[in-house]
Amino acid sequence: MGKSESVVLTNMCMVYDGDYILVQNRINKNWPGLTFPGGHIERGESFADSVIREVFEETGLTVISPVLCGVKQFKPKDADRYIVFFYKTDLYEGELTSSDEGEVFWIKKDELKNYELASDFESMVEVFDSEQLSEFFYNENFEMELL
Amino acid sequence: MGKSESVVLTNMCMVYDGDYILVQNRINKNWPGLTFPGGHIERGESFADSVIREVFEETGLTVISPVLCGVKQFKPKDADRYIVFFYKTDLYEGELTSSDEGEVFWIKKDELKNYELASDFESMVEVFDSEQLSEFFYNENFEMELL
Repeated sequence: MGKSESVVLTNMCMVYDGDYILVQNRINKNWPGLTFPGGHIERGESFADSVIREVFEETGLTVISPVLCGVKQFKPKDADRYIVFFYKTDLYEGELTSSDEGEVFWIKKDELKNYELASDFESMVEVFDSEQLSEFFYNENFEMELL
Repeated sequence: MGKSESVVLTNMCMVYDGDYILVQNRINKNWPGLTFPGGHIERGESFADSVIREVFEETGLTVISPVLCGVKQFKPKDADRYIVFFYKTDLYEGELTSSDEGEVFWIKKDELKNYELASDFESMVEVFDSEQLSEFFYNENFEMELL
């Protein structure tokens, strides 16, 4: 166990219903714009449970059986590795309710281009949607790679 | 970035070819038995590159476009969270060569039951194979959950 490193673990979930996806217009001066709900994974928490908890907190919906579909990672200079686990599901219960992290609403996926998106969000959606891609990575030169 | 924790990051890859899977008879007194090739993710390394590197080191094969298909995580008492990223691919080049970590060879997937498997390996394969399952988790009571 001597090979550990310091990591920030987070998640993000694409809840979809046919052609529609659930987005959040995030109120965050570091990362504003449209994105998917998600947040921090707590110590000792399973990744699936953390997704269910965060989606509920931010949307009022309880997602069922979210499935891992990719991962984003980057390492800012002099900071810890940051990992975002990408999940998706079209199974959910409850009533849509926004939180103070941002308004949540359904849009058709092909209307994404009409909105102001969070930085990198379009490339992240590409990884969510692809069967071949499963990683969004910034390399040591801070160039984006989709792998 | 104040929410980091200490984590060990590793990978494991199911290389398959039709009904056949590539297994390693691991020489490791802590975790002997049949498993898939894999190992530690280095600092700053993309997960996909770490899979390609580890599979090459342990099998002589260069895998192409490995895809994330699940994750295993557990947290031993008083030790760091340990994450294993599960990848799979049926695209590879090169010639099969075992390493000193264990002999590698092809078997039919339905012959797995005839071999001595590494602890938990059968449940891990279930996650590799399932479209619905994507996490192998030990909860705080050290009970296995497939999520």
